[in-house]
Amino acid sequence: PSHGARKMEHYGRFLALLASTLLVGFVSVILSLVWVFHYREGLSWDGSPGEFNWHPVLIITGFVFIQGIAIIVYRLPWTWKCSKLLMKFIHAGLNTIAMILAIVSMVAVFEFHNAKNIPNMYSLHSWIGLTAVIFYSLQLLLGFAVFLLPFAPVHLRVVLMPIHVYSGLTIFATVIATALMGITEKLIFSLKNPAYSTSPPEATLVNCLGLLLVIFGSLILWMASRPHWKRPPGKNAKILRPIAATPEGTEVESTMTNSSNADKSDLRINTEAARKQNIKFDEAGQRSTM
Amino acid sequence: PSHGARKMEHYGRFLALLASTLLVGFVSVILSLVWVFHYREGLSWDGSPGEFNWHPVLIITGFVFIQGIAIIVYRLPWTWKCSKLLMKFIHAGLNTIAMILAIVSMVAVFEFHNAKNIPNMYSLHSWIGLTAVIFYSLQLLLGFAVFLLPFAPVHLRVVLMPIHVYSGLTIFATVIATALMGITEKLIFSLKNPAYSTSPPEATLVNCLGLLLVIFGSLILWMASRPHWKRPPGKNAKILRPIAATPEGTEVESTMTNSSNADKSDLRINTEAARKQNIKFDEAGQRSTM
Repeated sequence: PSHGARKMEHYGRFLALLASTLLVGFVSVILSLVWVFHYREGLSWDGSPGEFNWHPVLIITGFVFIQGIAIIVYRLPWTWKCSKLLMKFIHAGLNTIAMILAIVSMVAVFEFHNAKNIPNMYSLHSWIGLTAVIFYSLQLLLGFAVFLLPFAPVHLRVVLMPIHVYSGLTIFATVIATALMGITEKLIFSLKNPAYSTSPPEATLVNCLGLLLVIFGSLILWMASRPHWKRPPGKNAKILRPIAATPEGTEVESTMTNSSNADKSDLRINTEAARKQNIKFDEAGQRSTM
Repeated sequence: PSHGARKMEHYGRFLALLASTLLVGFVSVILSLVWVFHYREGLSWDGSPGEFNWHPVLIITGFVFIQGIAIIVYRLPWTWKCSKLLMKFIHAGLNTIAMILAIVSMVAVFEFHNAKNIPNMYSLHSWIGLTAVIFYSLQLLLGFAVFLLPFAPVHLRVVLMPIHVYSGLTIFATVIATALMGITEKLIFSLKNPAYSTSPPEATLVNCLGLLLVIFGSLILWMASRPHWKRPPGKNAKILRPIAATPEGTEVESTMTNSSNADKSDLRINTEAARKQNIKFDEAGQRSTM
């Protein structure tokens, strides 16, 4: 087949996968609502179990679904004509929403625990969950300071980008693992008669929700790690070629100021020769293939 | 600094990371033994809780620690002088040991459940755990058939390698997530007086074990995904360059027969030109950067 036909086939496969991912994420959010409204006490903000119930709903909506979309937002082909700066704002914005929802969902649990005199922070779920929220916030702050604000020198961005990508995907996987622990805890605590071990309908529904979260996470990781689905480098990327000669502070990329300069892709190093100039820059060419 | 000095610095950093990973994995195994012998009923094979206790010990030893080592075994610099075939056998062998230990550990739980009339396969932990073991076995079988046996044509290996890498890392992450669910379940079920929520020493110890598993997994994923820590391609790799022209079955690489031909690295495509010949082969150049 021709190059164009291959490209269309690739595009079609991406769309099919994206549609599946959105469907799985959407069904997960619905199942969390069915769980909370049909089997549990619904939603409220008064220290009752209804306040606790915000926790699974907001975590699945924000910390899983929205975070997942934030991760693959650069992969959407129809955004490739948008400026890189705009996409960075969308990426940071979605992650900020996810962070706020995660924090609100934690407040709901603390308030519920305090109202019922249940201790806080004793479980492995709480230890890893709080750690994930802290790392997620640091990642967002550092990402904003280094990749969105115009002050960081290119060489710093180049060094930090593979770490940013790795941390992002690892935190995302940890968040899903924590959600699975939370589901396990909640089903054991709330299913007493009939017990979890007798597989009542609620247990089956929520187990399926857990499975969907794993599938959602796997699909996001697949889309994020396919090199041919990355946003293509801009035409101006080659300015980066003489890296070793580029002094700090005078670098070509200054996202805050050249938003009119649409497709400028900042961290890309296109030639093997450039790549070998500095071993640290090795990682930059691979920035999103992790 | 000179190229040689950079190389040594890189090597030193890899060794430090490897030592940390081994330490974290080793301490995890020790903590699982302390848990089982100091706080629980020890080990036995008689349908008692001592039989159940094989489950956490074998999962952490085999399905987490040994699987983790199997994943990064190609990254060890001192193995780069060994033949690729030998390394494939070690990779497959370690994964086989991990699979056997995982299966034995599941048998222990089923026998314990049956002896105590506890239902099997009702929890999210059991659903995802069994799924992980099945996918792990399929991955091992497929990997053996495609990458170790000499029958698969190169183009199939090239297409399947990125999928193999992705599946391997995703299954590994899922196994750790499942272990965290298992720890959560076991602590809730076995800590009654004092309860898990009162944070007795056993709870703190096992929560720390869970944290160590997350750290171990993160370290393995970092080492596996750094492109500059990959086994370097062999000198014969360039034979692959005219891909489109290579007929099936006559491919250059036949791992079963040329074990004397030491450093032949099979799936590497070194030039941009070759990469563009077939869009499917795109993925091959990136095979282990996921």
